[in-house]
Amino acid sequence: MAEILIAKSAGFCFGVRRAIKLAEEAINSGGKLYSLGPLIHNPQEVKRLELAGLEPVEDESNLKPSRIVIRSHGISPQRENYLKSQGFEIIDATCPYVKAVHEAVQKLCKEGYFVVLLGEKNHPEVLGTLGYLNCEGIVVESKQDLKKVLSREKVGIVSQTTQSEQFLKEVVGELALWVRELKLINTICNATSERQEGVMELAPKVDAMVIIGGKNSGNTRRLFELSKALNPNSFHVETEEELRKEWFENASKIGVTAGASTPDWLIEKVVLKLKEIAS
Amino acid sequence: MAEILIAKSAGFCFGVRRAIKLAEEAINSGGKLYSLGPLIHNPQEVKRLELAGLEPVEDESNLKPSRIVIRSHGISPQRENYLKSQGFEIIDATCPYVKAVHEAVQKLCKEGYFVVLLGEKNHPEVLGTLGYLNCEGIVVESKQDLKKVLSREKVGIVSQTTQSEQFLKEVVGELALWVRELKLINTICNATSERQEGVMELAPKVDAMVIIGGKNSGNTRRLFELSKALNPNSFHVETEEELRKEWFENASKIGVTAGASTPDWLIEKVVLKLKEIAS
Repeated sequence: MAEILIAKSAGFCFGVRRAIKLAEEAINSGGKLYSLGPLIHNPQEVKRLELAGLEPVEDESNLKPSRIVIRSHGISPQRENYLKSQGFEIIDATCPYVKAVHEAVQKLCKEGYFVVLLGEKNHPEVLGTLGYLNCEGIVVESKQDLKKVLSREKVGIVSQTTQSEQFLKEVVGELALWVRELKLINTICNATSERQEGVMELAPKVDAMVIIGGKNSGNTRRLFELSKALNPNSFHVETEEELRKEWFENASKIGVTAGASTPDWLIEKVVLKLKEIAS
Repeated sequence: MAEILIAKSAGFCFGVRRAIKLAEEAINSGGKLYSLGPLIHNPQEVKRLELAGLEPVEDESNLKPSRIVIRSHGISPQRENYLKSQGFEIIDATCPYVKAVHEAVQKLCKEGYFVVLLGEKNHPEVLGTLGYLNCEGIVVESKQDLKKVLSREKVGIVSQTTQSEQFLKEVVGELALWVRELKLINTICNATSERQEGVMELAPKVDAMVIIGGKNSGNTRRLFELSKALNPNSFHVETEEELRKEWFENASKIGVTAGASTPDWLIEKVVLKLKEIAS
């Protein structure tokens, strides 16, 4: 039977665990609760929570004043104030590390920097953070976006908490030669660094890698890309049902990791199924 | 006959040209003048200036109070104050771009950063700059030196004005992942960037590259290393006498560049000799 090795720091991070706990506590004490968008980027866990009483809605337009949980990604202060003004009760599950990004952006603005936010342009964390940007700045998703930054004298950099470390490294190295003054506040969270390191350690040592997590989860997709670069035999699945026996033919060691929004019960199911088919 | 192509921005930079002008004016108006160390890192030009009345001395210990020129590399404030207290008249030819490094170091100290000064540990510019460091910091000459920096939370980076851009890029990228906050004040001077770009443009297009400059000149050595990486047929000479006919056999295009302390008359002599032997 193939040996299954779990990467360091696979699965739920502090912020996600905290958001789920806050939502569950609110449901237990006060019943029905809404979240603006799915609480986390994992369809299976979101479904489980929905059965418990947490309903994801696109926006608040069809709701009467009620209790809304702000998910770990956070929202803009403008949106938060608007919700409060409309009589909604807010349960704030914004990850404290995301809050640190909001503060970093404001600090860089105050110090006169043009702000570069490394992240996915449509990611809710990035959209929320942009609400805290009260000076000039842009979101940088690929190196091509840097063209707009090169003429700036003073550039401040922050990043989405789940950004790829390699991308941060490349961008900072690139900008170093162009701008007169560069200030980086490294807001990649420890859980992200550790999970990426876990993949870097494990992927080269195994015959196949399985990365578990929502297809809509940015941090999971980046783990998958990192793994694929180190081991072409890498597969991204949401559930155990997607696993295929032929992926693991002749594999004696299989590595497993999971994104920050992947619950333990899903990891366990995948591991059980792997033990069954990879023999 | 081989075609000779001169790289962009070869030779004297603004700071060196200014230092020589200040020294020559001082000699013309008041006679004998001393410099602490050779005025620039070019033995041939230093010899020419010595004949005009500028005597390089190791230090001031054997001198009676007299006129001393501070060379473009600058000195520490402690040393400058000491000289003044001993009755020496100072002619300050410190390069304004080096002055900017002194200011950047003091600024980073004031803002609470651990200072990383990228440069050669024994270079006079670096030794002078260290006199302005009134907080914790170190000189980083190679990536190995970074070990002492990784545990720091807040790191500020400045560099010797003639540092290699590639090295700055690598160091900044490396530190980005380790420290919480990184501030870079890019103090590589424009002349250095332009000269390095000139080599990057020219070296891959020619059959041989000649880099002219003092063997004791750090910026010339870095131009040579950069050129060698792009064109193995690269040669570092101080004067035309070192050129060898066999280096240019079958060369139809020869590139030439020169360090910041290499005078035009030396470049011209080398070009004349090249035209003679590379035919």
